Amino acid sequence: MDNIDYQHIFDDISHELKSFDEQGEVASYIPELKNVDPQKFGAHLTTIENEHFSFGDSTEKFSIQSISKVLSLSLALKICGDKVWDRVGVEPSGSAFNSLVQLEYEKGIPRNPLINAGAIVICDILVEYLDDPKSEVLDFIRGITGLSSIGYSQKVAESERRTGYRNYSLVNLMKDFGNIHNDTETVLDLYFTLCSIEMTCKELAQTFLFLASGGVSSMVNKTIVSPTGAKRINSIMQMCGFYDEAGEFAFTTGLPGKSGVGGGIVAIHPEKYCIAVWSPKLNLKGNSYKGMKTLELLTAKTKSSIFE
Amino acid sequence: MDNIDYQHIFDDISHELKSFDEQGEVASYIPELKNVDPQKFGAHLTTIENEHFSFGDSTEKFSIQSISKVLSLSLALKICGDKVWDRVGVEPSGSAFNSLVQLEYEKGIPRNPLINAGAIVICDILVEYLDDPKSEVLDFIRGITGLSSIGYSQKVAESERRTGYRNYSLVNLMKDFGNIHNDTETVLDLYFTLCSIEMTCKELAQTFLFLASGGVSSMVNKTIVSPTGAKRINSIMQMCGFYDEAGEFAFTTGLPGKSGVGGGIVAIHPEKYCIAVWSPKLNLKGNSYKGMKTLELLTAKTKSSIFE
Amino acid sequence: MDNIDYQHIFDDISHELKSFDEQGEVASYIPELKNVDPQKFGAHLTTIENEHFSFGDSTEKFSIQSISKVLSLSLALKICGDKVWDRVGVEPSGSAFNSLVQLEYEKGIPRNPLINAGAIVICDILVEYLDDPKSEVLDFIRGITGLSSIGYSQKVAESERRTGYRNYSLVNLMKDFGNIHNDTETVLDLYFTLCSIEMTCKELAQTFLFLASGGVSSMVNKTIVSPTGAKRINSIMQMCGFYDEAGEFAFTTGLPGKSGVGGGIVAIHPEKYCIAVWSPKLNLKGNSYKGMKTLELLTAKTKSSIFE
Amino acid sequence: MDNIDYQHIFDDISHELKSFDEQGEVASYIPELKNVDPQKFGAHLTTIENEHFSFGDSTEKFSIQSISKVLSLSLALKICGDKVWDRVGVEPSGSAFNSLVQLEYEKGIPRNPLINAGAIVICDILVEYLDDPKSEVLDFIRGITGLSSIGYSQKVAESERRTGYRNYSLVNLMKDFGNIHNDTETVLDLYFTLCSIEMTCKELAQTFLFLASGGVSSMVNKTIVSPTGAKRINSIMQMCGFYDEAGEFAFTTGLPGKSGVGGGIVAIHPEKYCIAVWSPKLNLKGNSYKGMKTLELLTAKTKSSIFE
Repeated sequence: MDNIDYQHIFDDISHELKSFDEQGEVASYIPELKNVDPQKFGAHLTTIENEHFSFGDSTEKFSIQSISKVLSLSLALKICGDKVWDRVGVEPSGSAFNSLVQLEYEKGIPRNPLINAGAIVICDILVEYLDDPKSEVLDFIRGITGLSSIGYSQKVAESERRTGYRNYSLVNLMKDFGNIHNDTETVLDLYFTLCSIEMTCKELAQTFLFLASGGVSSMVNKTIVSPTGAKRINSIMQMCGFYDEAGEFAFTTGLPGKSGVGGGIVAIHPEKYCIAVWSPKLNLKGNSYKGMKTLELLTAKTKSSIFE
Repeated sequence: MDNIDYQHIFDDISHELKSFDEQGEVASYIPELKNVDPQKFGAHLTTIENEHFSFGDSTEKFSIQSISKVLSLSLALKICGDKVWDRVGVEPSGSAFNSLVQLEYEKGIPRNPLINAGAIVICDILVEYLDDPKSEVLDFIRGITGLSSIGYSQKVAESERRTGYRNYSLVNLMKDFGNIHNDTETVLDLYFTLCSIEMTCKELAQTFLFLASGGVSSMVNKTIVSPTGAKRINSIMQMCGFYDEAGEFAFTTGLPGKSGVGGGIVAIHPEKYCIAVWSPKLNLKGNSYKGMKTLELLTAKTKSSIFE
Repeated sequence: MDNIDYQHIFDDISHELKSFDEQGEVASYIPELKNVDPQKFGAHLTTIENEHFSFGDSTEKFSIQSISKVLSLSLALKICGDKVWDRVGVEPSGSAFNSLVQLEYEKGIPRNPLINAGAIVICDILVEYLDDPKSEVLDFIRGITGLSSIGYSQKVAESERRTGYRNYSLVNLMKDFGNIHNDTETVLDLYFTLCSIEMTCKELAQTFLFLASGGVSSMVNKTIVSPTGAKRINSIMQMCGFYDEAGEFAFTTGLPGKSGVGGGIVAIHPEKYCIAVWSPKLNLKGNSYKGMKTLELLTAKTKSSIFE
Repeated sequence: MDNIDYQHIFDDISHELKSFDEQGEVASYIPELKNVDPQKFGAHLTTIENEHFSFGDSTEKFSIQSISKVLSLSLALKICGDKVWDRVGVEPSGSAFNSLVQLEYEKGIPRNPLINAGAIVICDILVEYLDDPKSEVLDFIRGITGLSSIGYSQKVAESERRTGYRNYSLVNLMKDFGNIHNDTETVLDLYFTLCSIEMTCKELAQTFLFLASGGVSSMVNKTIVSPTGAKRINSIMQMCGFYDEAGEFAFTTGLPGKSGVGGGIVAIHPEKYCIAVWSPKLNLKGNSYKGMKTLELLTAKTKSSIFE
């Protein structure tokens, strides 16, 4: 244990950011995200010694959106190992998060599993291997912590589907290149459903803690992924977890992490802790404005990024 | 100290890679690189407790090429701090290392200081602030360790200049966007000269050790950059140090690092060690084939990447 | 009349090209195109004075494919005039004929109506204005000449649909930008059906003759499009009719024209004639190899391109 | 002769456009262009029967800028024929007129000789073949008409050089690909000098008339280029003469032509006439706003584009 008083630091951060200039816009492409109270703000940190610290709206559910891409990747790696990398890369995308340009240029192989195209390929793999993908993926996610309170929002999933033309475009382009093997609707149904998962900051921090502990979930005393798997997922989050702001996040915060347009961010300090933060207003790159600030302050105040 | 027997691990690695299938090609765009013996292979690791481990051709000089970009960045940050980031970004480039496309798209602001365009902007900054840039930069580099044996190769610098049309193209494009302030020849003279620095693996490991020690060089007992500066340089190396293979290096090795077309690679484990490795044959992405393998084996055998 | 002995010139051309080095490949993405005899070769020229000249397989049906894009454009212009240009441009595409890159860059507005994306927008417009689009478009096409022998191939349309993932991708990308208003399947059903039209060279030359006659079809004594409409369609064919080889065709042949992957090409000499040529082997840019050569020889021998 | 009363049509056009909403901006990157009176407006038309028609400021000198690219191309074709096409293409560029992106993608071969990169390659060819390129090119241009009043503006050439960083960038990129053989400064000196040619509308129309007459200049009774050469230059002007507005110009006007940022446009109706028009205000694509309108009205009123 590193004897850092996280609760004190949390109090400082939430105090500092209270008077913080409010910037950014709540995601508005579906009503379920648009109608969230933009003032919501909370965080939860769990150490690998199972200590808990939190502030604000840390026990309120929100739509984790793209953060779920890390969990579907974890399951795909568990199921079929390195074969995953035949169909998706591990390089940062360096451009808009759902750009078709790069996908066309690279012959239908998405640059990494945390951009939309890559996460859709992961869904295609899961559809291939699972009998009832939606319920089995949910079982896997709940199984990490044993928390059966985690679930999908059918309303969000349905809204995603109705406005998801660009994802339909991605699937069909990848089909043209032979990198989607299953029916478009089945694959996208899983994809949109995974985007709709709702968790609290506390549930998120508990769920992702296995990535700080070499792949083991201490809550259920179970290996979720191998130590190498955990290390690799962390490296992919570091390189690709923040769309075209991955470098900025490494530069200011210095932790592997993943954001979602619902305003959530999860970040890992290997061998130390997992933190989840939520604030719905997004910056121009699509990442939670206050969430980014929270994590920057955390690693500055604790002097504990992975790069120092 | 972590009680890892690095020498034993080094012996294993050099033994394993001896019988290793020889792949890749030595850089051939200038005679000085083309004529290097492709069989050269060596490494040197220095811990922050000042222990030394090595194998092979670790005390032979080679052209560090782009590895020097980290050192010129360090000096620019020391001199003018965060103003550097008005003129160059911190995002991975996600494409060929000297591509003009992205530079044009992003209005003459290079994505990061470790691609050619970005390193040229850093040179422009140094030309602005220093009276005699070439000798003052060399003084800075020598000053990190006190080793006066480190120097430029005028022959390599001259060859770089003669074949450097693409760098002339970059400078002029950035001039068009107003992001180069000084005379083309002066800026490129510094740039090509910095590419020509020659070091041994041992000198490299000693020089870069300050990035593992919060910015302090223990050899000369001096602060080279601030702790925050060291952390940020490490994050930039992590995100941008291996051209379009940065994700792959994070995935397989998991350390901040920087490669050069001379076949050298330097990598940092914060609070633990700095390692330099040299093998001239490059893979298709322009990084040392055997050097990459060496570092992958090192972090696998020591279970000590920054992502676990 | 210009007193050119077209039949003599045709005899020369067919003789010259008989001993011609056979290059190119028959389109192979659907069986109906792949199984066509690659040796087929024929042409038909109709003057505005209603003289007819032909050689080879000029009365055999083939799949006109993208040539039909000019006819659906004609009908859309007839129905809703310049409003068409709010949704599609008139500039050459300068890259692969169905590239998504440019479409994304230009916010879902296809560069012109003769690339796939643009022709799909035209289909969307026709679906909007017509009660029974497929039969009404066929009526329009047959109505140009009164030839009821012209028809769709349900087999080809079905094959196109089965392999048309990239067109599904285009539709969905344009939906995302708001430039497709109707149901995906309805729009693409019309698009694929139009690609499947089968004509002989003679029927093609007769059908397109109205574009050489200021928009009037002399066969049925009817105005098909206005004189300005005809002039503009010709200009679009000149600029955009040959994918990324439009400049080459202007340079060597110098007539407005349109090619299809079935190996057909139609070309117009305003106030003079319309010619259709067919040879299934395609060059690397997707245009009929021998067809291009035939037209080059025709304008060279008659000294009658529009640029001289 | 076609019995069109061009003078009457000119009077109508100049009257119509007098009350015309003034749009666009004068080019401002060099003082010599910026300080031109934006109200200047004139045109001159010469028929192949040597009739002359004009209005407005048709006898005032202006900077023809990129219009000169057609003349240097003509000379290069005269000197070394089809070998020119080994080093530059004939396809429209489909993007910003001096974009580096496409040039890099296409390995240093410019898409056509009327974009900056292509015109620079033409200059490189002329430097290769001529002893005193600047004076010999001027001799060639004067020789088309015998008008010794045509000349360079040293002041404009010098201003171009001082702000021409992007052209330096293009040259160096092409050098990297091996497509520039001579010294950068020598090639660009010729290029910038050619941009600085000054002519009146009357001189321009007389100079370019050979392209309407199968390559023959009737003023000096001399063959300037072969009939095939003239036809091909016309086709290239049609496809590439107006940057990313070539399709628009074909669509609205329907003549081969070339514009310059000085506000001049020259256009050819083969076997009929050559027209030059001048109005300094440019539209967003960099073409003369009123010049474009003048030519659109001319072909509409005479019903005489090459596409009808």
